[in-house]
Amino acid sequence: MNNYFFNYGIIGSSGKLGSEVKSVLSNNGGTIVFYHNRTGHFEITKPEVLIDCSLPDAFEKTIFYADKFKIPLIIATTGLSDEQFDQLKILSESVPVIQSNNFSIGIQVLLYLVDTAKNYLPGWDIEIEEIHHRSKKDKPSGTAKTIQKVFKDNNVNISSLRLGNIIGDHSVHFATSGEILTIKHSVNSRRIFAQGILKAVRFVLRKKNGFFNFSDVIHSDIEYEI
Amino acid sequence: MNNYFFNYGIIGSSGKLGSEVKSVLSNNGGTIVFYHNRTGHFEITKPEVLIDCSLPDAFEKTIFYADKFKIPLIIATTGLSDEQFDQLKILSESVPVIQSNNFSIGIQVLLYLVDTAKNYLPGWDIEIEEIHHRSKKDKPSGTAKTIQKVFKDNNVNISSLRLGNIIGDHSVHFATSGEILTIKHSVNSRRIFAQGILKAVRFVLRKKNGFFNFSDVIHSDIEYEI
Amino acid sequence: MNNYFFNYGIIGSSGKLGSEVKSVLSNNGGTIVFYHNRTGHFEITKPEVLIDCSLPDAFEKTIFYADKFKIPLIIATTGLSDEQFDQLKILSESVPVIQSNNFSIGIQVLLYLVDTAKNYLPGWDIEIEEIHHRSKKDKPSGTAKTIQKVFKDNNVNISSLRLGNIIGDHSVHFATSGEILTIKHSVNSRRIFAQGILKAVRFVLRKKNGFFNFSDVIHSDIEYEI
Amino acid sequence: MNNYFFNYGIIGSSGKLGSEVKSVLSNNGGTIVFYHNRTGHFEITKPEVLIDCSLPDAFEKTIFYADKFKIPLIIATTGLSDEQFDQLKILSESVPVIQSNNFSIGIQVLLYLVDTAKNYLPGWDIEIEEIHHRSKKDKPSGTAKTIQKVFKDNNVNISSLRLGNIIGDHSVHFATSGEILTIKHSVNSRRIFAQGILKAVRFVLRKKNGFFNFSDVIHSDIEYEI
Repeated sequence: MNNYFFNYGIIGSSGKLGSEVKSVLSNNGGTIVFYHNRTGHFEITKPEVLIDCSLPDAFEKTIFYADKFKIPLIIATTGLSDEQFDQLKILSESVPVIQSNNFSIGIQVLLYLVDTAKNYLPGWDIEIEEIHHRSKKDKPSGTAKTIQKVFKDNNVNISSLRLGNIIGDHSVHFATSGEILTIKHSVNSRRIFAQGILKAVRFVLRKKNGFFNFSDVIHSDIEYEI
Repeated sequence: MNNYFFNYGIIGSSGKLGSEVKSVLSNNGGTIVFYHNRTGHFEITKPEVLIDCSLPDAFEKTIFYADKFKIPLIIATTGLSDEQFDQLKILSESVPVIQSNNFSIGIQVLLYLVDTAKNYLPGWDIEIEEIHHRSKKDKPSGTAKTIQKVFKDNNVNISSLRLGNIIGDHSVHFATSGEILTIKHSVNSRRIFAQGILKAVRFVLRKKNGFFNFSDVIHSDIEYEI
Repeated sequence: MNNYFFNYGIIGSSGKLGSEVKSVLSNNGGTIVFYHNRTGHFEITKPEVLIDCSLPDAFEKTIFYADKFKIPLIIATTGLSDEQFDQLKILSESVPVIQSNNFSIGIQVLLYLVDTAKNYLPGWDIEIEEIHHRSKKDKPSGTAKTIQKVFKDNNVNISSLRLGNIIGDHSVHFATSGEILTIKHSVNSRRIFAQGILKAVRFVLRKKNGFFNFSDVIHSDIEYEI
Repeated sequence: MNNYFFNYGIIGSSGKLGSEVKSVLSNNGGTIVFYHNRTGHFEITKPEVLIDCSLPDAFEKTIFYADKFKIPLIIATTGLSDEQFDQLKILSESVPVIQSNNFSIGIQVLLYLVDTAKNYLPGWDIEIEEIHHRSKKDKPSGTAKTIQKVFKDNNVNISSLRLGNIIGDHSVHFATSGEILTIKHSVNSRRIFAQGILKAVRFVLRKKNGFFNFSDVIHSDIEYEI
């Protein structure tokens, strides 16, 4: 296994995220040897890792190829059903699988900091805020809902603002009488999601099997790189 | 007429705002010569200006004393009915009357800037945001609704956050693809509302009659003081 | 004169701004008929308007072609000398000339709002803040210095932060005891500068001569479009 | 030992912080049995804990009484010399001593989150920002310098803004190309510092001896209260 050079395959290579992923991986030791798209299919050799940047309706193809190649799977598809998650978990018994709705490093650090802060600040008021581009359809964002889960409380209020072309801002405010603590994350380039997937690639190439999320990647990172 | 020394009366002198008003006016040339409260009544001589810091249920008393003294009225009571506004307008034919939900100078400047900005930024997305202390009952705040009226569009979204002991933060975001302009106002002392009422006092003492809001005071100010 | 179709020439067509300008103008009725670059020269016919997206060292060429064609000039070059400004002013006696350091619409609105606010808030504390990408060389930014000029006071403090790949954030804070008013502008795409130049093109095509800045374009706009 | 009722003594009881401390402690089981001020001295019985809210020039008195009573000491005095710290450390061999420049709970959580975040975000740009009231003399604030120490790098830039009557805002920005993470803390009442001292009182009453800072109190808290 080599951290620096690897062959990869991609499902959904032509979308916004898929294009960024190909660009980032090519610049960091990756060679594309397989892809499967709505518009085409390409296969030179067996890849070392499979990345799914498609939509849930391509899920069966993803499982098919992960199974066929017996290689690690990184899946960035959002909106998967419970049944699809079950399939991923079965798959993860034989190969490593990473699923995440948000491959930004900063958002994972935000989630961890929020989890830490909430333990130090019992009884403080909490507000979640997210800002996205006007054309975003879901409200609140999936990431805001992930933040809400940190508090294990569906009543934590989420404010959603829709403004211009903002890729994704998320804030969590903690307040008590006399003080406020805010943790905020802003994305200004979709490229960072592809960079997160690169980190995930390096992580899975070191694993035998198991089901992971992107937070595992970040937490492992701290042991390896610092 | 004297800008610097004046006798004033107050309805509702014992509440949070009333206490601040008495303190600020005393330090700026004001002498209290009349008050009327739930718990007492005090009258030395006829005041030059009457200030109402009470609740709507004291409104009849306010009209009674404004009428009796024939002096300018400043009314900070919120939640007045249409009938009560009509009574104020009739009163304003004979004396000057100032009504406002928010005697902060900064919020009036925000309203003016928002009105200006909206004309320069047609078609931009708009979001209003307000943050207040957890015990505030109305949601959204009256001031956020006043901001919404600047846009003459009830569909402009208002996000309301409830955090700690925040006195009042209001933001307006304008965005288009590629840029965002935000105008934000924060209050960190109730004293400023009393200082706004002091400005209103100086304004009405120069007027014969008429119905005004606090924005008229601010806009007049710029001619006098700069 | 036609607002919608026009032939244009460009000096410095291959840089970041020049590329954005060509893309935006092509999509809005513009046809490039002339360019002059470090690497080449192209000329089909006389353009109706000349745009300079180059550096100060190309200035003489710009003056040469503006003079030759006798057409309006829009110049986005920053760091011009006093002598170069004098040359532009002489040129502007015969053709319209627009010079600006910042062709963002939002920053012009910010400048106007700041100028308005300062008149309403005499004696308030003022702080200017700017955030740009880590590789920006000048500190503070030229736009922050333009904001400082609004206050006609070189002692107004400017805080400069250098973070990631931020294109340009500028904030102005006004504060007094008890309240703060903030006006903030953020850019998240260089495309908006090209869109501002498009507005400038439409403006100069309506003018006979004169020296203008981008604020004149915005203020004129409000009369035409609203 | 009882968490809820305790007798305390205070050095410097008449200043801003001392007054807040007396008010908060009285409302939470504390009875003042000793004080020593510039203007007076009061002693009923031996206190269980001594709190120093004075200035460095009262330090010898503080050591004298801590020594005399052999009780825990909480010292909020800032600007102590190295020699004075050495004296505190010697004292802490026999009684527990807590020294901190900032008894806000939120700022301690911020420090901990910043320390955590920096390990997850190696190579990211860092900027520290602090805002305080216009009359603050030191620039940057002591707390901003404490934040800078977390990075063990005196070159981390600190921006200092001076605005109105702001008690204390501190922000830390982490940025890389494409994303920004901000951790921000704002104080809007000095009362919280007194509440922190109450927490410190409860902490020292459980300790035999040792030298602590306020962060130890907060970290211990998480074990006891959650």
